Amino acid sequence: MFLRIDDFLSVAEVQALAHLATQAKFLDGRRSNPHNPTKLSAIGDPNDPATQKAAQIALAALQRSEPFQNFAFPRRIAGPNFARYEAGMKYGAHTDVAFLPIGPQPLRSDLSCTLFINDPADYQGGELAINLGTETIRIKGKPGCAIFYPSTTIHEVVPVSAGVRLVMITFIESQIPDQMQRDLLYTLGEVRALEGLKIDWRNRVQLEYVIANLHRMWAR
Amino acid sequence: MFLRIDDFLSVAEVQALAHLATQAKFLDGRRSNPHNPTKLSAIGDPNDPATQKAAQIALAALQRSEPFQNFAFPRRIAGPNFARYEAGMKYGAHTDVAFLPIGPQPLRSDLSCTLFINDPADYQGGELAINLGTETIRIKGKPGCAIFYPSTTIHEVVPVSAGVRLVMITFIESQIPDQMQRDLLYTLGEVRALEGLKIDWRNRVQLEYVIANLHRMWAR
Amino acid sequence: MFLRIDDFLSVAEVQALAHLATQAKFLDGRRSNPHNPTKLSAIGDPNDPATQKAAQIALAALQRSEPFQNFAFPRRIAGPNFARYEAGMKYGAHTDVAFLPIGPQPLRSDLSCTLFINDPADYQGGELAINLGTETIRIKGKPGCAIFYPSTTIHEVVPVSAGVRLVMITFIESQIPDQMQRDLLYTLGEVRALEGLKIDWRNRVQLEYVIANLHRMWAR
Amino acid sequence: MFLRIDDFLSVAEVQALAHLATQAKFLDGRRSNPHNPTKLSAIGDPNDPATQKAAQIALAALQRSEPFQNFAFPRRIAGPNFARYEAGMKYGAHTDVAFLPIGPQPLRSDLSCTLFINDPADYQGGELAINLGTETIRIKGKPGCAIFYPSTTIHEVVPVSAGVRLVMITFIESQIPDQMQRDLLYTLGEVRALEGLKIDWRNRVQLEYVIANLHRMWAR
Amino acid sequence: MFLRIDDFLSVAEVQALAHLATQAKFLDGRRSNPHNPTKLSAIGDPNDPATQKAAQIALAALQRSEPFQNFAFPRRIAGPNFARYEAGMKYGAHTDVAFLPIGPQPLRSDLSCTLFINDPADYQGGELAINLGTETIRIKGKPGCAIFYPSTTIHEVVPVSAGVRLVMITFIESQIPDQMQRDLLYTLGEVRALEGLKIDWRNRVQLEYVIANLHRMWAR
Amino acid sequence: MFLRIDDFLSVAEVQALAHLATQAKFLDGRRSNPHNPTKLSAIGDPNDPATQKAAQIALAALQRSEPFQNFAFPRRIAGPNFARYEAGMKYGAHTDVAFLPIGPQPLRSDLSCTLFINDPADYQGGELAINLGTETIRIKGKPGCAIFYPSTTIHEVVPVSAGVRLVMITFIESQIPDQMQRDLLYTLGEVRALEGLKIDWRNRVQLEYVIANLHRMWAR
Repeated sequence: MFLRIDDFLSVAEVQALAHLATQAKFLDGRRSNPHNPTKLSAIGDPNDPATQKAAQIALAALQRSEPFQNFAFPRRIAGPNFARYEAGMKYGAHTDVAFLPIGPQPLRSDLSCTLFINDPADYQGGELAINLGTETIRIKGKPGCAIFYPSTTIHEVVPVSAGVRLVMITFIESQIPDQMQRDLLYTLGEVRALEGLKIDWRNRVQLEYVIANLHRMWAR
Repeated sequence: MFLRIDDFLSVAEVQALAHLATQAKFLDGRRSNPHNPTKLSAIGDPNDPATQKAAQIALAALQRSEPFQNFAFPRRIAGPNFARYEAGMKYGAHTDVAFLPIGPQPLRSDLSCTLFINDPADYQGGELAINLGTETIRIKGKPGCAIFYPSTTIHEVVPVSAGVRLVMITFIESQIPDQMQRDLLYTLGEVRALEGLKIDWRNRVQLEYVIANLHRMWAR
Repeated sequence: MFLRIDDFLSVAEVQALAHLATQAKFLDGRRSNPHNPTKLSAIGDPNDPATQKAAQIALAALQRSEPFQNFAFPRRIAGPNFARYEAGMKYGAHTDVAFLPIGPQPLRSDLSCTLFINDPADYQGGELAINLGTETIRIKGKPGCAIFYPSTTIHEVVPVSAGVRLVMITFIESQIPDQMQRDLLYTLGEVRALEGLKIDWRNRVQLEYVIANLHRMWAR
Repeated sequence: MFLRIDDFLSVAEVQALAHLATQAKFLDGRRSNPHNPTKLSAIGDPNDPATQKAAQIALAALQRSEPFQNFAFPRRIAGPNFARYEAGMKYGAHTDVAFLPIGPQPLRSDLSCTLFINDPADYQGGELAINLGTETIRIKGKPGCAIFYPSTTIHEVVPVSAGVRLVMITFIESQIPDQMQRDLLYTLGEVRALEGLKIDWRNRVQLEYVIANLHRMWAR
Repeated sequence: MFLRIDDFLSVAEVQALAHLATQAKFLDGRRSNPHNPTKLSAIGDPNDPATQKAAQIALAALQRSEPFQNFAFPRRIAGPNFARYEAGMKYGAHTDVAFLPIGPQPLRSDLSCTLFINDPADYQGGELAINLGTETIRIKGKPGCAIFYPSTTIHEVVPVSAGVRLVMITFIESQIPDQMQRDLLYTLGEVRALEGLKIDWRNRVQLEYVIANLHRMWAR
Repeated sequence: MFLRIDDFLSVAEVQALAHLATQAKFLDGRRSNPHNPTKLSAIGDPNDPATQKAAQIALAALQRSEPFQNFAFPRRIAGPNFARYEAGMKYGAHTDVAFLPIGPQPLRSDLSCTLFINDPADYQGGELAINLGTETIRIKGKPGCAIFYPSTTIHEVVPVSAGVRLVMITFIESQIPDQMQRDLLYTLGEVRALEGLKIDWRNRVQLEYVIANLHRMWAR
């Protein structure tokens, strides 16, 4: 399941991130995936202060966003990082690694997130293309847009033919790793929220009974 | 989970079953569980026409009962049979066998059912006592009452100290063998039915989405 | 996961189906889903000889198609049926029912299939739109095209604003009900087929060891 | 499954808790469940020293109790707290929340526990009523009695019509979240303990083989 | 887990099978596995009357064997067939196919069985070698010996360097497909049988409670 | 599954461990399993500096070994300890305890490891015998050899009839507790490594897609 939120970042946050990107030190993207000959991109140096400040801005947005929290049941979030694709760059079809070596326990990537910073009119190509068998979801978000998608898919950034594409990316470990289970629990929570007190109290209690027990059953 | 339905059988059906029981041939109850020294009861001969006619009446009641169908998700139902406990008889604490050798494929006993035929005032003792650790559910139903309870429990018929207890018993294989899963799916179905068209259409579609997918996921 | 096969039906088969549709008796589509106020379509009468002949043609195509067999691990296939949408008709967002009452055992709908018969230029609107959270897959196939998609999704046929849309639809119960598991097993089978004898024999045996054991583990 | 232990607390502990309750600061019970209009009770202030001392006494009793440890496979225990129901108070039918925000990782509520402090003769009504479909388990324990029951149930405290009901409550995260699995493992442990060295050594090793492997398989 | 039964077949049965093998028509073993270049053996023609008579003898032995029934929880058994390895023949490392196309529903191979017919002194090499990572189980049974082993392993028949090896082979679909679960349930059944009435009745009931519920939980 | 690595420790490490064993303080082996009358061995005192130094050497070897890391998916490793069996000593058939009380969270024993230190010619008997039903794997390694085997088995050290057997033992908690799942994931990883860049890039991406998703699905 996909969640796209168009104004995930405020205009001020987008400007701040764009500015920090001009100051940040960038490294060869293959650093985080050295064996992949199809990866041609630049990524922020996680030890660079500008990148670290950008990560804090992005993290704060993730933590305050109720739609994201309801959708993702996040347990841990990896530090967001810059990715920059100049003309000729791309990231060929790949699967995100299952466990990222972050902190004392590796972080399982259940959801991947791209935050779009610059204007899609600034570059040609560069769509995030997510493979679902013979069909493909293509995303090219406006500045401030966030897309959350399953890390379990094969996906790619198609070649940028002109201009520069600037985004931040991160990975989320969810309390509910199975995509279908996570979506069913999210959906019941939305029904409860949307019906509010309009639903009979007894039915609301029954709905909460189901939600609480699915949550216990599926959390890992 | 338990489902007790007080007027599961009509008065006419109860009378017909009580009459058939006077004509039926009874066998030593240990026939169906020869190694259990605590089983002292009489059960109908499944080959006897009176018992077979009684089984048809009970089966028809099970098939027409919407509350039972919604609660149990029945796939197969064993032929109901008479059980008669005279003074001094009992069925000590036991678990129902997991698979009954019925037909080409054994029938898994997920739910057990007792149909009460004669008046609880006609006998002393004889409660169906279902063990839940240190607590116990005790059932002594009026004529026509049906109790459905998990076959997965340890349960007993406590000794009849006076009079005669006459019931029919049967076993149900459910599409959803896990008790908790079955109850969650039943509960969502009740919420949908009780809210009816009062719930927003979009929320109703979302609820059906969850119900259909849990049903696919859990049916075995 | 999605599988679209463009020339699933031969030109002759498409013509035969189009001709049979002119002879078939059509019924109100709500017949198969009476409680859904958003369903406005016409479906073939399953007892009509023209519809039955069309079902045989479609079924034969499903049974001979190796890509479909490899992708779907079909155990049972429901009888395909016509669906016709005239101007103003639609099928609002819905989930396919989990179990269809077909034959002695209900058929679990794991995959849904639409076979496109007439030309997409013949009608406006009428796309099959499959909901994946905030993103949507839209399909409007050429004559003879088949699309296989998970029955577990919320999907719809958007209103036809002009012309007539003619398709056949059916449902598949898979040996592997879980979508992700089915796709992983399919993918390993494709790798084995594509590498063929180029892969070292010992590695091929290891791959078959994994495939056979996942197949045992996941089939239900 | 239920575990009731009548003399869980010593007489001295009960007296100490009753005394601490007279000193403790109480808050509106809705504080811990603000959206529930059926909750009318007073709960201890977790920051109050008297409540904290009471929590230590209750926790020590939980940690030393072998029957509780064997039954519950506790991994974490929430800080016990006072709950006081005066005449007219109640806690309507509800499910305990699946995860409590305690410490760095939320605590999953698998088992709920009520410790009874004052005499059941001191109040009318106030039973803990645990819903099992159409049947209900009702508990009104003597001072020092502990009842452990699945947090997965819908349960309530029925209205107190006269007098005051004083209890402590807490929640346990078990190593074995599934209720049936936890009970099967507990039961095998009891058989092993009760048979002791009377069972053949070889059979004892086999039993331990099963217990150890179920423990590995089911712990989460 | 492995089960070797040395006198699985009587002397008379072994003689009858050896005689039938002299009459039976043999086919190239690659018939049942055409893509495997390492398979060099002769197998009985399933349509030949001598092979069919041998299959009946072997099947009767499987059906009467209590140790096999207790160990395997068989649901379906494929028709046993002859396999003959002459000098130079072998069956290289392979996994048995997960589903055999037998009858209306394919048969899942959970357990494989070899019945040894002729004397191990009659041939050199020809051991059944079952791979368990870096360790290997090697079996060369006496006439009448049966070995049951998981179909989930990679195994082989090492080359026969002199003489002739004659066996029958078959495949069993178990009610309990997972090997570990099947072994735990078998082990508890053995403990119950070996302790018999020596175990306290209450503990026996508890043991049966666990056995019945694991059986329900794990059967597929 | 079993993994035996013959030169797991270097000659220098073996000598160092043998020397430390002469300095270490040994305790009665029943200390770690007091109720087992069949355990007669001496184990290192975990608080003794010589044992602690030996543990560091063994741990370093486990951490640097790529074959072990690939095979075991280790999450935590218990501190290795000496075990010494003099003539007449043994460790009868037993299962390793499921959870070892190490650190803040108990460590689940998924894999057991024996490191052989002295020469097998130095003692008679003393094989590590691992029970697989009626078949047995017997291991008597050379100095420096490591054997990794499932903690889920019943196994024993057969009586030492002459000489002294000196080993180190430890336990591993794996990210993938289920033995079959762990072996399938390990096998796919081996295929990927062995095929390297010889496999088509697209097929390699597909293989990585399967590996990453099985890893997410099975890690606990």
